[in-house]
Amino acid sequence: MSDTLSAAVEIARDLIRCPSVTPVEGGALAFLDKLLTARGFTVERPVFSDEDTPDVENLFATIGSGAPHFVFAGHTDVVPAGQETEWQHGPFEGEISEGVLFGRGAVDMKGGIASFAAAALAFLDNHGDDFTGTISFLITGDEEGPAVNGTSKLLQWADEQGYKFDACIVGEPTNPDQLGDAIKVGRRGSLSGIVTVKGTQGHAAYPHLADNPIPGLMKLMTALDAVIFDDGNDRFQPTNLEIVTFDVGNTAFNVIPARAEARFNVRFNDEWSLDSLKLKIQEILGSAATEDLKWDIAFRRDGSDSFLTRDEVLIKALSEAVEAETGRCPELSTGGGTSDARFIKNYCPVVEFGLVGQTMHKIDECTPVKDLDELAAIYGRFLESYFASKPKG
Amino acid sequence: MSDTLSAAVEIARDLIRCPSVTPVEGGALAFLDKLLTARGFTVERPVFSDEDTPDVENLFATIGSGAPHFVFAGHTDVVPAGQETEWQHGPFEGEISEGVLFGRGAVDMKGGIASFAAAALAFLDNHGDDFTGTISFLITGDEEGPAVNGTSKLLQWADEQGYKFDACIVGEPTNPDQLGDAIKVGRRGSLSGIVTVKGTQGHAAYPHLADNPIPGLMKLMTALDAVIFDDGNDRFQPTNLEIVTFDVGNTAFNVIPARAEARFNVRFNDEWSLDSLKLKIQEILGSAATEDLKWDIAFRRDGSDSFLTRDEVLIKALSEAVEAETGRCPELSTGGGTSDARFIKNYCPVVEFGLVGQTMHKIDECTPVKDLDELAAIYGRFLESYFASKPKG
Ligand SMILES: [Zn+2]
Ligand SMILES: [Zn+2]
Repeated sequence: MSDTLSAAVEIARDLIRCPSVTPVEGGALAFLDKLLTARGFTVERPVFSDEDTPDVENLFATIGSGAPHFVFAGHTDVVPAGQETEWQHGPFEGEISEGVLFGRGAVDMKGGIASFAAAALAFLDNHGDDFTGTISFLITGDEEGPAVNGTSKLLQWADEQGYKFDACIVGEPTNPDQLGDAIKVGRRGSLSGIVTVKGTQGHAAYPHLADNPIPGLMKLMTALDAVIFDDGNDRFQPTNLEIVTFDVGNTAFNVIPARAEARFNVRFNDEWSLDSLKLKIQEILGSAATEDLKWDIAFRRDGSDSFLTRDEVLIKALSEAVEAETGRCPELSTGGGTSDARFIKNYCPVVEFGLVGQTMHKIDECTPVKDLDELAAIYGRFLESYFASKPKG
Repeated sequence: MSDTLSAAVEIARDLIRCPSVTPVEGGALAFLDKLLTARGFTVERPVFSDEDTPDVENLFATIGSGAPHFVFAGHTDVVPAGQETEWQHGPFEGEISEGVLFGRGAVDMKGGIASFAAAALAFLDNHGDDFTGTISFLITGDEEGPAVNGTSKLLQWADEQGYKFDACIVGEPTNPDQLGDAIKVGRRGSLSGIVTVKGTQGHAAYPHLADNPIPGLMKLMTALDAVIFDDGNDRFQPTNLEIVTFDVGNTAFNVIPARAEARFNVRFNDEWSLDSLKLKIQEILGSAATEDLKWDIAFRRDGSDSFLTRDEVLIKALSEAVEAETGRCPELSTGGGTSDARFIKNYCPVVEFGLVGQTMHKIDECTPVKDLDELAAIYGRFLESYFASKPKG
């Protein structure tokens, strides 16, 4: 069978067969290491550690030394398979059925890595000695997990080794329905927090001796939920807050509890910074709270500001490649969740483009094999165009 | 030492030394059995069973066969001691220090049982053959626990044996500050329920694909919390609702949850029945819910209606005994939590009077020994007066 598969499909299948559920390497980085080393890349696999999170292995591969320096970023780790028996095809078997490749990571994002690897190797084969730029792979094993020992530290590590990048594509699945729908050219920021109200525990039959924290917390969270932060703009969706949980954990019907806690997450656009948003939230809670309410807010430290990439050469080269291969003019989107692009944007212009995201994180994650080949063709066309324009050369 | 203790104090101390934490008998019922059998009582110890709750032992002791039939009700089971090392005196040692008896159950309610036992035995000694009424003890080992295999079943059992009661005193600690403060002549009803809102789970960055159940549940519970059910009356406190918990249990800041649940408890007066209150609550929730909100309410089956005891002979005999012994005119109260009186009221008029409740369920539960003697004197004076009036004889 395997002699009938394209390089992109074969690499994707082999990566899916490595059970690399975060934080386990699962053989996926070793596979890429071997593949890229054989074609002349210099490969390094730094392991990063931190308090309270598992050690994670990462991969940096580079070829060439001239300008411009293009880097492809991605992750080989995947979310757990869930109930394996519910899958039509084993999540780590890489089965192809009726033109569709099944498996955890098929679209998020072993498929994206495979398509770029196939494109880059073909590009290098075609250009041989006349290639004067640099191509690198920045691949982490910690994107789906805490993301502490992943891209953020790998970028810092590369910077310390002297690597400077001119442009980056992250191969996350950015297309809602069809390949060519959307390139992500920015991301909203994200801010999470915990609101706590303290009361006084007591017996439900003697409320005057107790102080129930639940009504006070409902008042605060109702006020927060009612805020219209902005109406969005031509670059970004409106800012939106979701209360993601509200917990007391009291199991006794005759007890008034001592404490209640709610957690929220805000996805915010470029009309806000982390700081201005925190101030606004504190202001809203402060206005909603009665004077004697014992409340507190703690913002999580993993908040990130929004960003918008404005590198016209990068965006134009990718958009034109997408349109040439798919016939679709991709939307330049800033919607959806965060990605490792939030770290990369501090080092170089970054956009995101990959497969169709519909099945990501789901049972029976899969991609048509023709999407893998089409994506490889898009990435290949992009590399031709990007290096031909030699924007930083 | 023991020869200097009164009968009430000695019995209380011996009961405390039986570690009868619900559902364990701990020797407490066996002790009462021996004590009462020795003085001519017929004693039975039925064990009751039910699904999902432990088997529990109970005690019924009776002497005499004529009218009126007075029954004293109580429980020998106690709540756990908590951190035993935090106690000044061991919770199951019955130590007396500076005139104060320490131990779990000292006031709730081994002390009350001890005072009544001392009073009843002295009363029987004094009257000998000229006593023509009936005195019984209805003692459960399941009041602090699920209360499934306790007083409720013991009453039914006694009824099936042909025992009919004319009046009952429950020996629970009814006095807030000083012996003589209050007789309970009724109790508010209690109704608990669970309100659930279902939404659709999703990613916090894609709220249009999800449906967050938390704002809807906050709306419902805020409406419920705002209701003024009534202003109370000369018999009862106002009806009061407490939201006792609100739970989602979502641990991920980037996930919109699928379900939220809140639980409430209402303590209600005689302006409501269980049925009218349920209707009112459903009506409030129905008005507060938007049309497309997927909400539900489930009332717990352990709800109880309020009651007020109107037996003037019983109340007068007890009030006058309290006033004669303490110099205080007891308030006829209907406040506070529920007790096993909610079951007894279906069989005969019932009031509650016992020790001072301040230390109940706490570390260092204790009672002055003089309160035990004074309570025994009150019970004794009550028995004299009640049987002298022979109200049903
Ligand atoms: Zn991903
Ligand atoms: Zn009690």
